[in-house]
Amino acid sequence: MSRTDLASQNCTLARTIELIGDAWTLMVLRELFLGERRFDALLRQTGASPHILSQRLKRLENEGVLRRETYTTHPPRHDYRLTPKGRDLWPVIVTMKQWGDSWLEAGDTPVAIIHKDCGRTVIPHVTCPDCGEPMTARDAVPRLSPEFTAERAAARKQA
Amino acid sequence: MSRTDLASQNCTLARTIELIGDAWTLMVLRELFLGERRFDALLRQTGASPHILSQRLKRLENEGVLRRETYTTHPPRHDYRLTPKGRDLWPVIVTMKQWGDSWLEAGDTPVAIIHKDCGRTVIPHVTCPDCGEPMTARDAVPRLSPEFTAERAAARKQA
Repeated sequence: MSRTDLASQNCTLARTIELIGDAWTLMVLRELFLGERRFDALLRQTGASPHILSQRLKRLENEGVLRRETYTTHPPRHDYRLTPKGRDLWPVIVTMKQWGDSWLEAGDTPVAIIHKDCGRTVIPHVTCPDCGEPMTARDAVPRLSPEFTAERAAARKQA
Repeated sequence: MSRTDLASQNCTLARTIELIGDAWTLMVLRELFLGERRFDALLRQTGASPHILSQRLKRLENEGVLRRETYTTHPPRHDYRLTPKGRDLWPVIVTMKQWGDSWLEAGDTPVAIIHKDCGRTVIPHVTCPDCGEPMTARDAVPRLSPEFTAERAAARKQA
């Protein structure tokens, strides 16, 4: 199976992985969440090559994760901004950051998160929307849909 | 900059991206969270090639995200299990899945999550640990450390 085949799976996680499960794409998202908008800034802060960066930006634009906005017409220049679909990736980026802070770090966190509403520096965490308790892998049981169960059974039988 | 240079950045997110920002690595994590443990099962359910799968498993083992456990000695056979460090990646996987459910899906979610404590099918979300409110990109302000600020200023000056 090629990487692009992931997009055709029933699994919405596999389809998300196919789209953003790539180091340069994730670095671009980091930069957009930090407020960078211009190609040159994205180039320098991600460390990607111009070709790779162009390709990743085009894909994210095609998928509606970001949009280009013209900021001057003489000469024509545009910048890159997250759409609502793109901004909705914030929990993914933040949970990756928290994991890095917990497991890969030696000193202070490079980016603290301040919650506007309460003004505090916080470590956002994943909770249950019903009971409000923090959730971990131990607290959750996955229940697979019939379609996904069938897809997995077919994969299991492959030679 | 090469992809491996990300690991040397001050940013813990960049270092997380260097380690798990890869489609096959993320697919392996999906499978481990779904309870698969054996090489053959991981091979079939991820769709990775044997070479790629071996390489990703070895890296994750070296980084302490998973461990190999011998389940029979004649012949010697082992399976793969998440360590506490690996299980702590659950919020990353779950937020990616939720995003896919919200933005890439046509029908029902392929994997519902049941919260053991309350018994409900839930959509875990990211909240502020202080005030308990759900958090989005709009609610958060990043505050960069002096080291990360200096690293970014240096990148900005690169030709």
